[in-house]
Order: sequence, then C-alpha cells, then structure tokens
Amino acid sequence: MLKNDLILRAAKGEAVERTPVWLMRQAGRILPEYRAVRSSLSGFIELVTTPHLAAEVTIQPVDLLGVDAAIIFSDILVIPEAMGLAYEMVEKKGPYFPEVVSSQADVDKIKIADAQSDLGYVLEAIKITKKELDNRVPLIGFAGCPWTIFCYMVEGSGSKTFSKARKMLFQEPAMAHQLLQKITDSTILYLKEQIKAGADMIQIFDSWAGILNPTHYQEFSMKYIKQICNAINEVPITTFAKGAYFALPSMKDLNCNTIGLDWNMDIANARSLYGDTKTLQGNLDPCALYGSYDEVKKETESMLDQFKGARHIANLGHGVYPDTDPDKVRCFIEHVKEYSAR
Amino acid sequence: MLKNDLILRAAKGEAVERTPVWLMRQAGRILPEYRAVRSSLSGFIELVTTPHLAAEVTIQPVDLLGVDAAIIFSDILVIPEAMGLAYEMVEKKGPYFPEVVSSQADVDKIKIADAQSDLGYVLEAIKITKKELDNRVPLIGFAGCPWTIFCYMVEGSGSKTFSKARKMLFQEPAMAHQLLQKITDSTILYLKEQIKAGADMIQIFDSWAGILNPTHYQEFSMKYIKQICNAINEVPITTFAKGAYFALPSMKDLNCNTIGLDWNMDIANARSLYGDTKTLQGNLDPCALYGSYDEVKKETESMLDQFKGARHIANLGHGVYPDTDPDKVRCFIEHVKEYSAR
Repeated sequence: MLKNDLILRAAKGEAVERTPVWLMRQAGRILPEYRAVRSSLSGFIELVTTPHLAAEVTIQPVDLLGVDAAIIFSDILVIPEAMGLAYEMVEKKGPYFPEVVSSQADVDKIKIADAQSDLGYVLEAIKITKKELDNRVPLIGFAGCPWTIFCYMVEGSGSKTFSKARKMLFQEPAMAHQLLQKITDSTILYLKEQIKAGADMIQIFDSWAGILNPTHYQEFSMKYIKQICNAINEVPITTFAKGAYFALPSMKDLNCNTIGLDWNMDIANARSLYGDTKTLQGNLDPCALYGSYDEVKKETESMLDQFKGARHIANLGHGVYPDTDPDKVRCFIEHVKEYSAR
Repeated sequence: MLKNDLILRAAKGEAVERTPVWLMRQAGRILPEYRAVRSSLSGFIELVTTPHLAAEVTIQPVDLLGVDAAIIFSDILVIPEAMGLAYEMVEKKGPYFPEVVSSQADVDKIKIADAQSDLGYVLEAIKITKKELDNRVPLIGFAGCPWTIFCYMVEGSGSKTFSKARKMLFQEPAMAHQLLQKITDSTILYLKEQIKAGADMIQIFDSWAGILNPTHYQEFSMKYIKQICNAINEVPITTFAKGAYFALPSMKDLNCNTIGLDWNMDIANARSLYGDTKTLQGNLDPCALYGSYDEVKKETESMLDQFKGARHIANLGHGVYPDTDPDKVRCFIEHVKEYSAR
C-alpha cells in the first residue's frame, strides 16, 4: 500500500489533507545529481534506454525535492522509435528524425509498437523504480498525445509552426488519420503495459495542441485523446494539452480525471468551466522560481488561493527551466505543502 | 483621395460593399519577384534599410496578389536598433543581438529612438511607397509591441520560452518597466512619424504575448499597449497579440479599432466578447492554403460565414508560410472578394 497517495486521491476528487505537488520535467536538468548521471553517458537516449539509470534519476526528485509523485524518466519519442522511426537527440537542438513519414507508402511501413518487445526498457525501468520507491509515493507513467507524436514523425524535428505536419492535414487527411490511428493503437498498448509494470497514474502530453485550429484540433487530436482516455480505466489519467485553451470546454467530456493547465491559463475561467467534474493541475509560471524566496512563496500562495476549494494538484504550468535553482524548487514544494495544510 | 478605402472603413466600423483582405508577411517569402530583389542583396537588413527597394517589395503584393492594403516592408527590430542595440539577421536562424540588456547600466545606456534621424530610411520608404501606390490602396505602418521588443533586447534572439526576458520581470521588475517605457516612448514617436510620412493605418504586433502569465501580461504588456493606443489617434490602429487569448476580454477597453485573431482563436467567442465595439481581423489557418483550390475556397467561405454580420477584415491568422503557392494566395484573396460581395 502506498504511504503517500495524496495525488491519487486528489485526481479522483477525494478528500486530501493538503494539496499534492510535483513538477513536470522534475527529474531532468536542474539537479546536480541528475547531471552527474547524465554526463557519464553518451547522450540522453542512452539514459532513457538504460533501465536502472532511468529508475535512478526518476527517484532523485522524490529524495531530493520532496515531490508527492515520481514520473518515470523517459521520452515521448520512444513511441515513434518503437513504430519504426529511429531518432537522435541533438545537443541544444532537440530531436531529429533522419526519416520522416511523407507518403502513403511511409504510413504503410509504420508498424504498431509492440510495447513488451520494443519498449521493454521503459517497462523494466518502471519495475525497478516501483521496487526502489518502496511505496513511498505513486509513480506516474506517460506518453505523448497522438497529434504531438504525429508532428515529429512528419516534420522530423521541432518547429515553430509544424507547417509540414499541418500541411498533411489539409492535403492528405485520410492518410493523416491512418497514421494517427496507428500512433493511438501503439500508445494505448504501451500505456496498458506501463500500468501492468506498476504505473499508478498516467499523464498524456499534447505539447503541440496549441498550433491547430479549433476544427482540426477536434478532428485530428481530440478524437484520438478520447480513444486513449476511454481505453485507460485502470488508473487515473491526466490530459495536458499545451496552449489549447480553445479546447478546454470540450475537454470536459473527456473520460479523464485531471486537466493540466498552462501557466498562462486563467484559473477562474478553468474553474467555472469544469466545476467539480475534473481535478485541475498546475499552473505556477516556471519563471516565478527565478524570484526571491519571499516572492516564490508569495506567487505560490496566490496560485493556491486561486485554486482554493477546487480539486487541485499543484505543479508548474510548464516544465521546470534548466537554469532554475533547486533550492527555489524546494521552496515551492515545501510552501505548497505547508500553506495548503493550514 | 484613396481609390480603395475599404479597409479603413471596415476598421472604423463603417459600411463596406465587401470584406477587405490583406495578408500578414504578404510581401516576403512567397513571391518570386520578391526573392529576385532579395537575392540581389547581401541580406534582409539591406532590404529593410534601402528605401526604394523596401518600397518596391511593399507594392508587389498590391500588383501581384490584389490585396486591399499594402504594409510597409520593414522589421519590428528596427526599434531596438535605433535605441542603440544593433542586430544581425542570421539566415535560417533569425535575429541575433550581439549585445543585450541585462543590467541597470545597460538600461541607462539605451536611448529613446529619434525616428527622423535613426529611422529615416523607413520614413523614406513610406514616402516613396505612398507616391508609387498613387492612392490605389491604403498603406499600413507597423511596430512591435513593447513587450515583444523587450523580449529580443533582453534575450538577444528568438527563444521557445523567452525565459531570460521573463526572468527579469520576476527579478528586476522596476528595471524591466524602465526599459519597457523607453521602448514605448520610442515606438509612439516612430509611429507618429510613420503617419506623418503617409501611413494610413497602424498595426502593432505582440508576437510573444502568449508566453506571459495573465497577471504579467496586464502589468508588462497591456500597460504599454494602452499608452500606444491612447497616443495614436490620427489613423485607425490594430492590435494583434499572438496567443494572448487570455487577454481578449481586457483588450475590449483598448483605444484601438481592430483586434487581430490567431488562426486558433474561436471566432464565435471573439464575436461574443467584442460585439460591435471592434473590427476583428483574421483568421484563416495559413496551412489551409496548402489545400486544393476547392478546399481553399471552402475554408475561406467557412471563415467568412463565421464572421458574417461582424465588423471584419479578412486575413490569415498568422504570417503566410514561405512555401505557400502564390496562386493559392490569389485564390484566397479573390474568393474573399467574390464571396463576401454576394
């Protein structure tokens, strides 16, 4: 039995003694202990694919920052890799796919990922983490949303506009749907295996939600998010659709427990949309952690006050930025715990 | 007198025979005639600073695409340049400032731009353009909004998060306000000179509006946009705050005629917010121009139908993408004219 199940209870809308808190990208980037592990390796992908090291950096923030949940250290791009599109992580530039999907023949070649054989290293990392966590806190599993994964598979790298990926939606919508369905099928199988391996909760990230027009978002993203949310009933699920403020009203009907909010989303508006139907997660501006300790506390209190009385899991509204002082992160986490327990 | 003043009338909420149409970034990128001028030069900045060539590419889309307004070919970063921070335009990477503002001493060194001496080349380009346009269509002048200019002056280049610029808001808010005020003062003087030189209308672009949290947006961006809108009364003014959906309700109180909408903004929502108090500009998804001619027409009709009965200036919801077929752009423009006149 979990010793700290606050985040699971909060996700389900059950009573909690205080607001649970964790950080997106919590493991990476800011901890010297993480950097020590990372610098001993050839690159990011080696860390992702080495289960005992992925488990080690997954647990670091539990020990060093005091978060109420661990999130498995991995990457959303393991899915395209498992579907047949290998990628590289280029230092300071981000992911790069030497081959992309641009034709029907390319779509036909893409396979449904077999999570057990193709993504066994993630499942193994989850098992090791669960054992080493020893039920102290829950472990969050995750995947990218199909639209976001599609973006990388078609564009081949990050982009400000993802106009190649979006071009396919206008030029070859049927082909785009075929690829999105393959990604969705792979993702559902993968998430179910994560849960079997021990994940206590799931978050799906739609990092590029905000670049679709509202009609396309429903047709090419929400359709597949719905399939995932309907398929995952074993554990609570969180949907974080970055920048998709326009989709917030329709996300009310998703079969998920928690909705993640960006730091630029209006809390009062989200509360009035969702009422008590969802738990809201977020949404301190990650830049607030650049302020003094007093200001970190003040901003944290302001955020908590705005969520007061709502179902809430505290987090930043985006991944923690790499040059953030870990002591400011600790200050944020401790202050959420202390202030929300008053 | 202007032979075609549709866009000015639409901006003021007066009756129009059909919906006026133009494109953001219309001059650049897509026209072979533009590329011919551009490739004869050392770089983008040479084109911006050579008045007769800037005028030539400003007029090209009027002749070649049939838009209802020209927009002076220039760059929002001429303002920091005129304030003492020179920049380079790095091919395929974007703007780069060798020196940035990071201390009080840096802020103190920054001067208020003297538009006549420091930005005379833009004013000259406006005068030449006005003469050569011969009153066929109005000429739009423009500037970046102070927050967006601040982003570049502090960060030194483009960025996904502009976390250095946003860090200053949390760490040195008073210093940030000093810099923002200097940018605002420079911008107002500059826009007034643009109008004296012949600009018939002004648009201000807040390209990085969407990365601020709602409280910061009011404090560090809207405050200065308000100053600009209150200072410019000679001609209609348009505010385009990209991604700042959260600011749409408060923009109702701005002393401006037109609000630009991103392609991912919900038209019905914007109409219900603004009613007849503002003209709305936008917002076809630029990727819609990748579709077939029939689909370009269908998407254009759908957009126009959603704006039907509202004060409207048709445009894309973002700059036209560089690999867009000019014939598809013409199809969009012609179809706006034809369909909205029915």
